[in-house]
Amino acid sequence: MRFSTETDRVEAFTDRVLAVILAIMVLRLRAPQGTEPRSLLPTLPAIATFALSFILIGIYWNNYHHMLRASRGVDGRARWANLHLLFWLSLVPFATAWLGQNPLAVAPTVVYTLILLFCAVAYAILRQSLLRVNRIDAPFASAVEIDIQGLPIVLYVVAMCTAFISTIVADVFLIAAAGLLLFSGSARRASDQT
Amino acid sequence: MRFSTETDRVEAFTDRVLAVILAIMVLRLRAPQGTEPRSLLPTLPAIATFALSFILIGIYWNNYHHMLRASRGVDGRARWANLHLLFWLSLVPFATAWLGQNPLAVAPTVVYTLILLFCAVAYAILRQSLLRVNRIDAPFASAVEIDIQGLPIVLYVVAMCTAFISTIVADVFLIAAAGLLLFSGSARRASDQT
Amino acid sequence: MRFSTETDRVEAFTDRVLAVILAIMVLRLRAPQGTEPRSLLPTLPAIATFALSFILIGIYWNNYHHMLRASRGVDGRARWANLHLLFWLSLVPFATAWLGQNPLAVAPTVVYTLILLFCAVAYAILRQSLLRVNRIDAPFASAVEIDIQGLPIVLYVVAMCTAFISTIVADVFLIAAAGLLLFSGSARRASDQT
Amino acid sequence: MRFSTETDRVEAFTDRVLAVILAIMVLRLRAPQGTEPRSLLPTLPAIATFALSFILIGIYWNNYHHMLRASRGVDGRARWANLHLLFWLSLVPFATAWLGQNPLAVAPTVVYTLILLFCAVAYAILRQSLLRVNRIDAPFASAVEIDIQGLPIVLYVVAMCTAFISTIVADVFLIAAAGLLLFSGSARRASDQT
Repeated sequence: MRFSTETDRVEAFTDRVLAVILAIMVLRLRAPQGTEPRSLLPTLPAIATFALSFILIGIYWNNYHHMLRASRGVDGRARWANLHLLFWLSLVPFATAWLGQNPLAVAPTVVYTLILLFCAVAYAILRQSLLRVNRIDAPFASAVEIDIQGLPIVLYVVAMCTAFISTIVADVFLIAAAGLLLFSGSARRASDQT
Repeated sequence: MRFSTETDRVEAFTDRVLAVILAIMVLRLRAPQGTEPRSLLPTLPAIATFALSFILIGIYWNNYHHMLRASRGVDGRARWANLHLLFWLSLVPFATAWLGQNPLAVAPTVVYTLILLFCAVAYAILRQSLLRVNRIDAPFASAVEIDIQGLPIVLYVVAMCTAFISTIVADVFLIAAAGLLLFSGSARRASDQT
Repeated sequence: MRFSTETDRVEAFTDRVLAVILAIMVLRLRAPQGTEPRSLLPTLPAIATFALSFILIGIYWNNYHHMLRASRGVDGRARWANLHLLFWLSLVPFATAWLGQNPLAVAPTVVYTLILLFCAVAYAILRQSLLRVNRIDAPFASAVEIDIQGLPIVLYVVAMCTAFISTIVADVFLIAAAGLLLFSGSARRASDQT
Repeated sequence: MRFSTETDRVEAFTDRVLAVILAIMVLRLRAPQGTEPRSLLPTLPAIATFALSFILIGIYWNNYHHMLRASRGVDGRARWANLHLLFWLSLVPFATAWLGQNPLAVAPTVVYTLILLFCAVAYAILRQSLLRVNRIDAPFASAVEIDIQGLPIVLYVVAMCTAFISTIVADVFLIAAAGLLLFSGSARRASDQT
């Protein structure tokens, strides 16, 4: 498995970290206290938050690989931009747990949104540093151009401000941002069926 | 390790998530409170549930790879059907922990069965979407035809209903479903020794 | 990464599970209660047990790959013998945590030894099923013959009986078994430097 | 994925363990007790310690692969030197959790620094054993020569002594050591953009 290029090594490492993040998020889901059906009630928002985070990590996994495979390489800067992205993504289980236990509280909603915002910004920074590596490579620019990363960032900022008024409305913005990322990714890849 | 196809990438990611799920399930096994031999007693049902879940994840690992390698590719829909399967599988450690601590209670048995049911349904959906990709590819259809996924789904539904009367009988149905999946997988692969 | 053979797939999966086991064992190390140097004292036996388990998983990792690469394939039976081995190995963090918190108690020492014993037996079963696959293949038999798996099994049984009299003496047997496995592996591979 | 050489197998295993360490460190970040913004205050030093450990593991990941790929092989000694390095690295989440909960206490600072010191020493031992494997191979020696591992070790020793007087000053030395490793790695790889 001597990686053919540095890019493959970075891609495989990210894949590994994402797989662990997906699978350990469930460790923060507390088993219900009692054994009656109603003891499951406090777990429901935790599972809903878990599902949202799961979908978001899934979207990042999809989009990330699409971007990296279009790139013709990585340099030292891109490697650290990549670790920077992994740093914020690895905080997602922490924010998910806090929000899941306090679904209607302001602070957990703001922190959760903030970490998603930092993930989106870190992703944009990584894309920027890859554009630098591929600077004269038109195909990469066009492959990545279609991503609509700017809009989710705006939605996250709006959600964060809204959370101080109503956390429910903030949740709607969060779900909208996820739906947007999901839809844009699906649209883009409708054709690249391998 | 530039994956030769998208299929390999999806397969490797699933392999990674399953490996983490298998290994972290044990983190929810609480160390016994005392140090006398009898302090192990409450841990025994937890270990039995752990063993059942371990075997089930093992069966999914086996069957999953058999199916994916028969397929000639994945499209966007199959990729999300795959993440959907991983979502339910990643909830298995949570349900295992709750059932392991309350082996005779109704609600944990129903929730555990429900999550296994959703895993089986998610697996069937993934197979359906792979059949779509391979639509004119006879070998894939015949390779997958032999899977008897329908029967376990029926057994899970029966187990879930029975749990309200007797959780012990429900456990028997769960073990029967696992045995069925195990046996059908073994029968199928008796020949494909590599 | 379409695996060239089934053997590679099984080997990679085991590698992944072992990597997770190694890294999560530390999650069961409790942070000391206070912040004085003496608050570290109860953590010391936990770290010693952790170190012993770490070395044992390392030995299994080494020996396992040596064996699998000598084999010319795996069949369904070997695949399940492999999952059976992973089952017992994945219980090692649980036993390590209990023993680490109660280093001088009888029951945790017996349970820890028992799980190591089951690991060693599962390893022997896997070797047996691989011998079956390679039955006419002299090189595999000779490559594996050098393993001295029988002696550790005897040492584990002795350690388990001794634990009822003195857990310290049992620990000596456990360390001796680890040293033996370590030494035999090192001796064998003195030449296969790649 | 039959690894072409032993080196690849060791490299992939280390990659896997490091990915798990990175991703599970967050599991020790406790969710804040309340839901007011100020309940996040005790979490801030924990997140800062988490960030420092994350960067350190990232540096090891970068430097490790650079070293291993320059080597023309591994022998039994290097394989165990590698596991020895992984042992100390896998203790990093434990020390991070203790320090993160008690950022100004002496003992946690000393233990954290001690474990980083052991990581650096283990890395130096691994390099030494790889130099032995490559003994007549000038390129490896020159590729590795540029590493300035000695200085961080000195900084860790200084930080450990300083911690008894002021933990804040010790933290400065720890951050300086990380910065030094980061800078030296970046300088070295400025050219090897692939």
